[in-house]
Amino acid sequence: MTWGIISTWQMSLAGVTKAAEQLRDGRPSGDAVQTAIEDVESNPAFNTVGYGGLPNAEGAVEMDAAFMNGDTLSIGAVTAIHDIAHPIAVARNLSHEQLNNFLAGSGADVYAQRHGFTSKNMLTPEMQAFWGKQVRKNATRHDVLNTHDTVSAISLDYRGRLHTGTSTTGIFMKAKGRVGDAPLPGAGFYCDNQVAGVVTTGLGEDLMKGMLPFKINELIRSGATPQAACDQAVYPFVDELYHRSGHIGAVSVVALDKEGNWGVATNTEFTFVVATDQLEPTVFKAERGSHNTTTIDEARL
Amino acid sequence: MTWGIISTWQMSLAGVTKAAEQLRDGRPSGDAVQTAIEDVESNPAFNTVGYGGLPNAEGAVEMDAAFMNGDTLSIGAVTAIHDIAHPIAVARNLSHEQLNNFLAGSGADVYAQRHGFTSKNMLTPEMQAFWGKQVRKNATRHDVLNTHDTVSAISLDYRGRLHTGTSTTGIFMKAKGRVGDAPLPGAGFYCDNQVAGVVTTGLGEDLMKGMLPFKINELIRSGATPQAACDQAVYPFVDELYHRSGHIGAVSVVALDKEGNWGVATNTEFTFVVATDQLEPTVFKAERGSHNTTTIDEARL
Repeated sequence: MTWGIISTWQMSLAGVTKAAEQLRDGRPSGDAVQTAIEDVESNPAFNTVGYGGLPNAEGAVEMDAAFMNGDTLSIGAVTAIHDIAHPIAVARNLSHEQLNNFLAGSGADVYAQRHGFTSKNMLTPEMQAFWGKQVRKNATRHDVLNTHDTVSAISLDYRGRLHTGTSTTGIFMKAKGRVGDAPLPGAGFYCDNQVAGVVTTGLGEDLMKGMLPFKINELIRSGATPQAACDQAVYPFVDELYHRSGHIGAVSVVALDKEGNWGVATNTEFTFVVATDQLEPTVFKAERGSHNTTTIDEARL
Repeated sequence: MTWGIISTWQMSLAGVTKAAEQLRDGRPSGDAVQTAIEDVESNPAFNTVGYGGLPNAEGAVEMDAAFMNGDTLSIGAVTAIHDIAHPIAVARNLSHEQLNNFLAGSGADVYAQRHGFTSKNMLTPEMQAFWGKQVRKNATRHDVLNTHDTVSAISLDYRGRLHTGTSTTGIFMKAKGRVGDAPLPGAGFYCDNQVAGVVTTGLGEDLMKGMLPFKINELIRSGATPQAACDQAVYPFVDELYHRSGHIGAVSVVALDKEGNWGVATNTEFTFVVATDQLEPTVFKAERGSHNTTTIDEARL
């Protein structure tokens, strides 16, 4: 049996490197996916996830996260959680609850406090200053690049266990209480040990119309490779949604099947990180190719 | 072109009857689905939806609702919204927003207030007294029957437009901020004018693992009848989830395709209401039959 981990955006390289060491050492995939995501949550250099993330329209950092277990299909998720160092850890804990496994806003805050998760003011002085400057300029999120970069990861361990994790502060200047794709089953993530794990990053408002992780999982179940499944699901969806609604946001997906094969598709310039027993942690960049295919190259760092 | 509406639980009979008159008169399906659901939201006799709904563990009524447009695939949703007479109306309004279309908790409350939606104390004296009695008895939701009866409806108008709507107060004694399936795209509802609409009711914690509305939509897209698609999706899923996790909650789905054909599947005793240009508003009861089929009879009222 092989092992592997794949995660969205170059920012996850350090976390994936740590997680890959754990997987190589035989640690379970649930631990590895949490490790990869917590590294990004902790790093104030990345302003779309966790500490140092961009605040909402009211100047508050509200975070979304989810965790899924591909064996039991158990899910834990939080949306609009505040002042918690590691939303992914709260989501993982919630995945053990038979009821009340997805919590929003102050309900998520109360749960995290009661269960002893580390409190932390997630708004850095830099992001507070940036927010203030944008408000004075009457800026909208459209003026700020790269403001929907969720860290979304899938890990597979030696024992064939798949887990997914997602974490984000969502779009800049989002409305209070806005729910993106990151905490939404089927739209932001899905995994099944018998098939694959699939996660997304991009504009949640559009991703929740496509249910790409669930759809790609079904295509792989029917025999498609992860790459073919990503291509077949993503490109017709983004074209169709543009045709129907006149606009389409960024949409990127990565998939990792139970054998460690992976795939990617995107309608934007997208970087991601892969590590397997065959491949040292490597950053790739992907973009849409011709005829519903994806062009993938190793990124020059 | 035909018209039709299908909605979960006998409680929706009066609302479906009003909505059917609208559809017969040529009114758009988005209006009809809202009419059907608002009728249930207003009625204090139904203690799982809207006014008179069961409160959460803290004694507060928190409501979930969603609206989907099968033409544009636009979605509006709220979770853990408070003191609003018609959550479905707020969800419908949110479906017109390009960003921030799904709002949670106090963020949803603020949006509803800013947009002038009718405020209302949704906790009736009867439900407050019932809650107090249950708390004194240290009751859990397991002691109270029928506490996850979401009103979920699909309507089709003469012009072939499909819409879905859902509304619920969720499970009794739920945690503050708990998100059920009703507001979750793909898990609680999905619709596409080119195919069908599908909605669920049951235990959200399990429904969000199955993505049944999206899956059933895909099966109908591939040529299955709504009934065959419901049977093929629901029964293997509930059996598989029970096998994997050792427990399974109530799961019921109804589907209505673009031609007005409908289907249903359930692992519990389930009632639903149908009206079409061929059928006066009628309450049916369904239960699981042998060999992954569904037994459907007209209900004796």
